[in-house]
Amino acid sequence: MTRDIGRVYLIGAGPGDPELLTLKAVRALASADVVLIDDLVDRRVLEHAPRARVVPVGKRGGCKSTPQAFIERLMVGLARRGQVVARVKGGDPFVFGRGGEEMLALAAAGIECTVIPGITSGVGVPAALGIPVTHRNLARGVTFVTAHTRDGAGPDWAALARTDTTLVIYMGLQRIDAITAALIAAGMGATPAAVIERGTTDKERSVIGSVSTIAALAGAVGLASPALVVVGAVVSLAGQRERAAPLRQSA
Amino acid sequence: MTRDIGRVYLIGAGPGDPELLTLKAVRALASADVVLIDDLVDRRVLEHAPRARVVPVGKRGGCKSTPQAFIERLMVGLARRGQVVARVKGGDPFVFGRGGEEMLALAAAGIECTVIPGITSGVGVPAALGIPVTHRNLARGVTFVTAHTRDGAGPDWAALARTDTTLVIYMGLQRIDAITAALIAAGMGATPAAVIERGTTDKERSVIGSVSTIAALAGAVGLASPALVVVGAVVSLAGQRERAAPLRQSA
Repeated sequence: MTRDIGRVYLIGAGPGDPELLTLKAVRALASADVVLIDDLVDRRVLEHAPRARVVPVGKRGGCKSTPQAFIERLMVGLARRGQVVARVKGGDPFVFGRGGEEMLALAAAGIECTVIPGITSGVGVPAALGIPVTHRNLARGVTFVTAHTRDGAGPDWAALARTDTTLVIYMGLQRIDAITAALIAAGMGATPAAVIERGTTDKERSVIGSVSTIAALAGAVGLASPALVVVGAVVSLAGQRERAAPLRQSA
Repeated sequence: MTRDIGRVYLIGAGPGDPELLTLKAVRALASADVVLIDDLVDRRVLEHAPRARVVPVGKRGGCKSTPQAFIERLMVGLARRGQVVARVKGGDPFVFGRGGEEMLALAAAGIECTVIPGITSGVGVPAALGIPVTHRNLARGVTFVTAHTRDGAGPDWAALARTDTTLVIYMGLQRIDAITAALIAAGMGATPAAVIERGTTDKERSVIGSVSTIAALAGAVGLASPALVVVGAVVSLAGQRERAAPLRQSA
């Protein structure tokens, strides 16, 4: 089915668990003629788009991938032909998801675009381990960064250390040695830290230690990307939840 | 219906729009015997919990409110009587939601607790204005803080300014004068800034200016809490989306 006027939904599918999709995302998927889906998104989300054509547009670091400009042209072309396009990304489209670039490309082409936020990994993945990223007395807040940005330079780790916020480093495992070295230099060697691979999915694996030990621990277990690095005193709360012995009997 | 073994779901309902609830939250609500719901959560989420008893446990700043210790005792008592308890909070339970304290109280009482993340306001509310909080070349990431913490001291605004991340200040409107004064002292007077009241709801109101002007703008319009303050170059992208003229005709 095509319409005279196409449109694009930029949808965040959340950190991995397909049940972390929002009702708004489900409704948009149900209306879609075409779904453009990223590699790392669980294919079960497509159950909500039974009548849509599915186009994989994965962008894995390093491997064969669909260039960003091609994806943007594809969305514009489909919408111009009257199609309702659901562009599905992992996490949230506006948190390291390049959703801003896609929104601007669509706006420049005169195409209506609706952003449907998703649960970003930096919130949902630590939560699955029982880590409350802004726990009072242990953190003043939380900061999400990547290890490297377009200009090639890394973040100012010393400034980040002084903020007294929990640090969540997206795509951090590839540069774990450089990150931990910088944090140790900033005086955070003893700070609790975790590396979490494929958080919230049934393939979740993680290691917990300190900034000084976490790179070796992740290496020993063979953790692989996609993985999140979490640094802060709040990591010490991981697993507290599991200490609850199930009640045997009601009072 | 009661069970021998109770349990608690700590559920994030998202920033305001009831469609931003996750499928996982909907499933937990459907299983609930009792829903403990915060003041600021849209009552339409209760449509997903048709058989539950509803207990409002609001905590508005200043006004009459349910003490945290009472809420924790209530959850423990209900679960011990075999009830399935859905504790519904605005945003995400672990981002300035005191979910960590509730998780620990439940663990200490031996009660099983499942955390269901929600879309935190710091991601979802700027997105509704077309602000991509981590847009490349404009921000290295994003930091969520509150204006004040339990120890009474504010964040180190100078360190935050040096991180080159977008700053999202939860519950920031009450202290907007002190916040903007500190940011101006840190050299951020000209940085774009927004204040957004009740983002993602049909009562959403916002003002956009710079760190130097935003307090006066918010005051002139009479913005009220709950409101989010967003500071960073990414704020300049707000509304770009709306410049897209709807297509009249498919190509």
